[in-house]
Amino acid sequence: MARALTVSIDAMGGDAGPSVVVSALLKAVQRHTDVGFLLHGDEAGLAPLLARQPRLQGRVTIVHAAERVRMEDKPSHVLRRGKDTSMWHAIDSVKRGEASVAVSAGNTGALMALSMFNLGIIEGISRPAIATIWPTLKGQTVVLDVGANVGATDEQLVDFAVMGEAFARAILGLKHPSIGILNVGSEEQKGNDGVKGAAQILRASNSPMRFHGFVEGDDIAKGTVDVVVTDGFTGNVALKTAEGTARLIAAYLRQSLKRSLLGRLGAVVAAGALNALRRKLDPRANAGGIFLGLNGVVVKCHGGADAVSFASAMDMAIDMARADLNARITADRGRIAAETAGAQAGDI
Amino acid sequence: MARALTVSIDAMGGDAGPSVVVSALLKAVQRHTDVGFLLHGDEAGLAPLLARQPRLQGRVTIVHAAERVRMEDKPSHVLRRGKDTSMWHAIDSVKRGEASVAVSAGNTGALMALSMFNLGIIEGISRPAIATIWPTLKGQTVVLDVGANVGATDEQLVDFAVMGEAFARAILGLKHPSIGILNVGSEEQKGNDGVKGAAQILRASNSPMRFHGFVEGDDIAKGTVDVVVTDGFTGNVALKTAEGTARLIAAYLRQSLKRSLLGRLGAVVAAGALNALRRKLDPRANAGGIFLGLNGVVVKCHGGADAVSFASAMDMAIDMARADLNARITADRGRIAAETAGAQAGDI
Repeated sequence: MARALTVSIDAMGGDAGPSVVVSALLKAVQRHTDVGFLLHGDEAGLAPLLARQPRLQGRVTIVHAAERVRMEDKPSHVLRRGKDTSMWHAIDSVKRGEASVAVSAGNTGALMALSMFNLGIIEGISRPAIATIWPTLKGQTVVLDVGANVGATDEQLVDFAVMGEAFARAILGLKHPSIGILNVGSEEQKGNDGVKGAAQILRASNSPMRFHGFVEGDDIAKGTVDVVVTDGFTGNVALKTAEGTARLIAAYLRQSLKRSLLGRLGAVVAAGALNALRRKLDPRANAGGIFLGLNGVVVKCHGGADAVSFASAMDMAIDMARADLNARITADRGRIAAETAGAQAGDI
Repeated sequence: MARALTVSIDAMGGDAGPSVVVSALLKAVQRHTDVGFLLHGDEAGLAPLLARQPRLQGRVTIVHAAERVRMEDKPSHVLRRGKDTSMWHAIDSVKRGEASVAVSAGNTGALMALSMFNLGIIEGISRPAIATIWPTLKGQTVVLDVGANVGATDEQLVDFAVMGEAFARAILGLKHPSIGILNVGSEEQKGNDGVKGAAQILRASNSPMRFHGFVEGDDIAKGTVDVVVTDGFTGNVALKTAEGTARLIAAYLRQSLKRSLLGRLGAVVAAGALNALRRKLDPRANAGGIFLGLNGVVVKCHGGADAVSFASAMDMAIDMARADLNARITADRGRIAAETAGAQAGDI
């Protein structure tokens, strides 16, 4: 049976191993009945796992890869020596058109390096970015870059704004998403050269993009804008700081409730509500990071992903594969670049 | 009566105005019986407020200032035109030795500009930093810079490490605080040139500083190290992102508990425990930012500070004035700089 869409999976990437991936596949095959899956990894280990799951028969194809990328492997090493790894195979399937999208829970640096090397960067964009979806008081906000790069020039921040807007339209379904650049204050004169330059380019542009201006760290969770643009260093620190804060507060809440008899009693009575909160804060519900700006779609699932989290990364991957952002990104970025060049050209 | 120590206060700085400062003073005069206070601001407004508080008689001296710095004033404007403002007067009292420390809830940029201009930077340090105390799973961690600068070179990050260590010893009372540099990963090859260069200098140094290496955003709340060093852009975004996350979770908690009858009942039963949590997360309990690296101590209180928060900023200011960090900072920084110069010198 011909499939509408195929997802290529690195079965060996996460901390937990292939059994989590198989559990995630059991959810994915039910949710997406017209999607096929390529499972890259150690055939001897994967075949018995699949054999026990009749629902995966005919939906999942194992593709043997003799090796795997480890969490501690350097990207440069994987680029030179990683041709037989399940991660390389998973991306190569996208490159060769056998699959529309790749998903891995492996080493982020290696995954980005292999994705850039094998798929290449789309026209008009100078660096890819990793986007993530952040829960907010109003709903959801896209934040990028959360770790593909360790800095960004003004032009690269403009790339991220264009990619983030296309993503928010396609995946969050927003008609006219608002864009903010993350800064240390909202006034025009604040910030480093990168954010000031990017804001100037976006303000001067006639692009239909709804550019809000600068936003601050607390604006992310407020949902002040739909897309928050930042360099990969700041974005990565912000993301992990938020995760750390959520865990700290959860620990405080447990301590506070345990300390008194009434607290313990209240916790028992409100257990349902507290569990609902726990699910909302659970990082497993987060699909992880989406690589934008490549000639092909790659989704990075958390290294410590369980089946719930891996399955939601597959959902995201399938949404991304269907959205086809890249034509839009190239056109939007080209328009802004042409405007900037036009504005900067001297009279002759 | 001669005072052991005098605190200089900008009475006109915060959003709430002088009445909050007077309420805070009522707490401070009780806690610190040997401390005197200079209150800079509009005498016509301040005198009646003080007259109503007999406990402040003889402890607080009003020093008239005709003008005030507004939250929207640009630092460059305040530097040129601000000589008659309460903020300028408050810092000038420290410069002239009339007070040991200044406290303001005003415009952070103006306060830093006036502090640098009037007090100057201590020997051996190239840029001041703003430090803050962060609650963690283990207790408290010092984080700096959270906003004095919009970037930092490797040498400036080393400055911050030295200042943060001296602060952690003096204010947190730690004998041998551990230091980490905030980065996007813990491996040596990760990060931008600034953090890699700073780590190299600190690793190579024979300074007794306990340098842990790189830490990530979630390590702040974990309490992995006692001092987290970062540039002012990243630190400011991390601080505000954490504040935003705490507010988001508090909102989720309220929603979850309100949604069901049992949730509402549990919240009533556990009200004491939930209020204890609220106090722990309350930003008012946080003293704000401490300016390090200046020839004089300046403490910045939150703009939206209430009396509790302003009083804890005064506590912090008094602790800082008594600690006398600067001699230690200059000596420690000088030793590391000499080692670096020695290691880099070519053979002749």
